[in-house]
Amino acid sequence: QETLLGKYGEEGKLIYELQDQGGERLALRYDLTVPFARYLAMNKVTNIKRYHIAKVYRRDNPAMTRGRYREFYQCDFDIAGQFDPMIPDAECLKIVHEILNDLDLGAFLIKVNDRRILNGVFAVCGIPESKFLPTCSTVDKLDKMPWEEVRSEMVGEKGLSPEAADRIGEYVQLHGGLDLVERLLQDPKLSQNKLAKEGLGDLKLLFEYLTLFGIAGKISFDLSLARGLDYYTGVIFEAVLLQQEKDHVEEGVGVGSVAGGGRYDGLVGMFDPKGRKVPCVGVSIGIERIFSILEQRIEASGEKVRPTETQVLVATPQKGFLATRLKLISELWDAGIKAEVLYKKDPKLLKQLQYCEDTGIPLAAIVGEQELKEGVVKLRDVATREEV
Amino acid sequence: QETLLGKYGEEGKLIYELQDQGGERLALRYDLTVPFARYLAMNKVTNIKRYHIAKVYRRDNPAMTRGRYREFYQCDFDIAGQFDPMIPDAECLKIVHEILNDLDLGAFLIKVNDRRILNGVFAVCGIPESKFLPTCSTVDKLDKMPWEEVRSEMVGEKGLSPEAADRIGEYVQLHGGLDLVERLLQDPKLSQNKLAKEGLGDLKLLFEYLTLFGIAGKISFDLSLARGLDYYTGVIFEAVLLQQEKDHVEEGVGVGSVAGGGRYDGLVGMFDPKGRKVPCVGVSIGIERIFSILEQRIEASGEKVRPTETQVLVATPQKGFLATRLKLISELWDAGIKAEVLYKKDPKLLKQLQYCEDTGIPLAAIVGEQELKEGVVKLRDVATREEV
Repeated sequence: QETLLGKYGEEGKLIYELQDQGGERLALRYDLTVPFARYLAMNKVTNIKRYHIAKVYRRDNPAMTRGRYREFYQCDFDIAGQFDPMIPDAECLKIVHEILNDLDLGAFLIKVNDRRILNGVFAVCGIPESKFLPTCSTVDKLDKMPWEEVRSEMVGEKGLSPEAADRIGEYVQLHGGLDLVERLLQDPKLSQNKLAKEGLGDLKLLFEYLTLFGIAGKISFDLSLARGLDYYTGVIFEAVLLQQEKDHVEEGVGVGSVAGGGRYDGLVGMFDPKGRKVPCVGVSIGIERIFSILEQRIEASGEKVRPTETQVLVATPQKGFLATRLKLISELWDAGIKAEVLYKKDPKLLKQLQYCEDTGIPLAAIVGEQELKEGVVKLRDVATREEV
Repeated sequence: QETLLGKYGEEGKLIYELQDQGGERLALRYDLTVPFARYLAMNKVTNIKRYHIAKVYRRDNPAMTRGRYREFYQCDFDIAGQFDPMIPDAECLKIVHEILNDLDLGAFLIKVNDRRILNGVFAVCGIPESKFLPTCSTVDKLDKMPWEEVRSEMVGEKGLSPEAADRIGEYVQLHGGLDLVERLLQDPKLSQNKLAKEGLGDLKLLFEYLTLFGIAGKISFDLSLARGLDYYTGVIFEAVLLQQEKDHVEEGVGVGSVAGGGRYDGLVGMFDPKGRKVPCVGVSIGIERIFSILEQRIEASGEKVRPTETQVLVATPQKGFLATRLKLISELWDAGIKAEVLYKKDPKLLKQLQYCEDTGIPLAAIVGEQELKEGVVKLRDVATREEV
């Protein structure tokens, strides 16, 4: 348990724990990444690519309108294995781009950074290594508060010197593209730092691959991106929706980040008894947030969404036709047609047609005396009232 | 909590409870039926038909080979609402039949009975009403133990008189079809019991509808069917796979019941503050058991199941073609084609083709110097080695 909490850092306190009902300490799944790493270690999997859509649980305050719940779905994609640098990382970003693009969520931007660059920045600004992680989680707040506040948290809570904080400030307010990567590779201090140089080299490679994928224009190298979780070891990224036009989104219902992830090369090794490492990179798509955006959009458009896919209602205008209806619907079901029938012995025709209109069933298959005699079924288009 | 335990009867002790971490008493979902009833009551839903496939949790001893786990999927279908008798009930049985038939699981039988008939039997055999439920759960064991043992449990543990037990024995060993329903409707004692008469009348109707659905031949009226749960109020049913041929199933890996359900007209009312009832009928498909049967069958057949749906591997015979491969795979992805590439800068062609064979990828899209010069891609059928 303590080990598990450790993996999540400060967030671990939101884990739902089960009662000890028989000598086992169990908890509800908090995310999909740590269990994935544990699965790889336990089953000695050294090479896998997979997606996983499943529920996770957080003992948090829900915020329904922002799509934040205590029980919610996560949707993760991860590539684990020892591969040549940045190819799987680029694939993760390609997938994020593809999803956000295909869902037509409006303008978005994918921010990238690298934990090694951040650590390099902290090092060249004179921060002791023991303060890298706390400083990192303060930098992470730059998307929610202005630099002045972040700076005072660094100096106050985290105990950095004002000068060190100011030096950090010069770096973490930078953002750009491949040009910024090139510039920092020439930075007299940063280029001397081994970790930062590695991170910048990898980002350069990443931009190269993303150019081949035709998506480099949507990627922003943003030194303020830090990501909350402790386990990242290399590239990190986050997709944000850009300011939407006012009349498309309710006020105060901003959603911001809709996907995020990064490289976590040490996590599997923590679960392996022999510490064997499996490098991983992955991304989590914020499907609950995306759902809430799509739902708001549908609501705003006034579009009616059908709750069922029923193609036809088996109906009758006369009394005593339940057996006929049941026989017909059975034939339709057997033929793979999505059919419904009112669970009433003798429903009124009007009620049956009304049901079609209420639920959006497009067709009614009508059988009465006349049809039975002729051995036919009358098919009625509910919207146009046309019958054949 | 206590109320919840009550809904599950004796089984309730297998519920996983969460730690009290902030004044809330929570538990993991034990099945899908009770939460469904609670949902209807809380949201004042009086009319719904839905299926639900989701995980449930039981603090039980797992038995992997029988498909019994502590965390497992259930697959439920329920129809809630006040309708004319037995139409939704017949639809439930039709669905069970359709699923088992389409999955091609071999010969099966659907047993039906009615709690009211069982209670009527107990009444005419002189059992006091307070002993109906305990007697019922003893009858439920008739599929696992011979009548002699069931009888001695009735007399020993449950305190019935030997004469009453014998009278029950005469009834609960009966099974048949519509003919048996008709016969019992003429039974001098049972036909005098109001509940039993109602139950028999409904079963007669059910057989009529199942005949219209063309599945009456698969249905057996079996008075030994009791179903474990306390909440059933009317018709109950269970689908069992019939004895499979020896060489198709490992010994000792019998699966028996693969679906079960029934009518529970009182459950929603228990959750409603005003006790408003919503009649329900539903069925639970044992998908884990069905999976384990299908998996065993695939394993026995030696058939290889592909773990991915990848259609094509983008490959190269030469060094220095990573950029070309990434550009090509990006085009394929954008066109909706399921493509993979080895995450290596310069993989050997043999290794790439070997990967196709290992994972069952049928095609390799090969680009080298020659292809690049001619502006073409060589498509190789991995199995036949044919190239175009």
